[in-house]
Amino acid sequence: MGNYKLILEYDGTDYKGFQKQPSLPTIQGVLEEALAKVVEAESPLYAAGRTDAGVHARGQVVNFIGSLKTPLQRLPQALNSFLPPDVIVKRAEEVEGNFNARRSAVSREYVYYIHRGESPPALFRRYVYHYRGNLDTDAIENALEYIVGNHDFASFCRMEEGRSTQREIYEAELSFWGDILALRVKANAFAWMMMRMLVGSLLEVGRGKWTSDYFNEVLERADNSLSGPALPPHGLVLEKVRY
Amino acid sequence: MGNYKLILEYDGTDYKGFQKQPSLPTIQGVLEEALAKVVEAESPLYAAGRTDAGVHARGQVVNFIGSLKTPLQRLPQALNSFLPPDVIVKRAEEVEGNFNARRSAVSREYVYYIHRGESPPALFRRYVYHYRGNLDTDAIENALEYIVGNHDFASFCRMEEGRSTQREIYEAELSFWGDILALRVKANAFAWMMMRMLVGSLLEVGRGKWTSDYFNEVLERADNSLSGPALPPHGLVLEKVRY
Repeated sequence: MGNYKLILEYDGTDYKGFQKQPSLPTIQGVLEEALAKVVEAESPLYAAGRTDAGVHARGQVVNFIGSLKTPLQRLPQALNSFLPPDVIVKRAEEVEGNFNARRSAVSREYVYYIHRGESPPALFRRYVYHYRGNLDTDAIENALEYIVGNHDFASFCRMEEGRSTQREIYEAELSFWGDILALRVKANAFAWMMMRMLVGSLLEVGRGKWTSDYFNEVLERADNSLSGPALPPHGLVLEKVRY
Repeated sequence: MGNYKLILEYDGTDYKGFQKQPSLPTIQGVLEEALAKVVEAESPLYAAGRTDAGVHARGQVVNFIGSLKTPLQRLPQALNSFLPPDVIVKRAEEVEGNFNARRSAVSREYVYYIHRGESPPALFRRYVYHYRGNLDTDAIENALEYIVGNHDFASFCRMEEGRSTQREIYEAELSFWGDILALRVKANAFAWMMMRMLVGSLLEVGRGKWTSDYFNEVLERADNSLSGPALPPHGLVLEKVRY
């Protein structure tokens, strides 16, 4: 019996999100099915981020307490042989008994990918949001400076009963790979829909509809009726969780 | 009436290659269907590269002679509205009467993408070949020096009745993006299956089964029974055609 941590990569396109739901395809659903073949789990599955329907991950982390029926170093391959090709266990390791993938995480890093161009992309279209038109990336970078630090992000997330929307953003940056613009945000944690509403609002700045000062005003007013539109899930990837 | 050039991007996963075949899904097939809605074509469709089943393109070039039923600047959008999301017209322009996408091309550039790692990728798995195990990339780079220049590539392609296998490679280089290794080759033209057999043979060098000198010997012997295995099509992208 031990506490085991798995690092997962998945293409969320064909799933209704991470969290298990009866008779719907979910990441947790297919993962627990595969785990049942090679593990006697004694705990629920804990996950660092409950990604929404259509959101991808390259560095999701989960853990469970239980016994392995296969040697630890063969666990990823054994699980992958039972998993569909769009969900992959990249690594498995044994961790201390008090490790919890959700509670022990000190930061999460998400990237939202935007493809700029007249026509949508054919390749990588499952992983990038297509934006037609000009974007003032300097203005977006100015706005990004406002979100770093400790803030109430109520303007840029959906409220969840009884849960705070206070979060700390450690880093926020824009990078460019040819036609693709990547917006990377590292925070202690993310509130529900936070990345998609934040990036949707940053695009309002980039297209010149909002100034970066107005963006800051919206942030400070902590009122999500002011947010820009939430962007679709398929541009979003949970890249890394740190402990 | 004019001569029109289109630049195409496509995800080849669900197609039996570029070239039209009766009752099979092909890029040419869906493209001609869309063209029929907005163009009166007076010539066949000429293409810079006849990509095989499963091969992708980010810069395929085609041309046709005919009359447009829509203004030229709206042609990409009009065609894209009739095309499936995995085939995209990126640009359209009018060219001189004697331009021919195949015969006028002075070079083609293909990239083969290899994902290195213990487990296969879940994201981008349609566009990268997964290779498990170590690769000596210095040895691959040594072997790459042998292929640059004018050679008979008979060892690294399938023969086609009555067609020469002499080609000139202008550039061949390896680059690295995290877990992904990209092998880019620019040549005047490519013989049938040449990229996939070439990269398959370079992997024999990378894994230490061949020395780079032996790779050169195979090249010089111009005998395709000596080739390494042809790699699968899904790692291959026609990136650019120059005129």
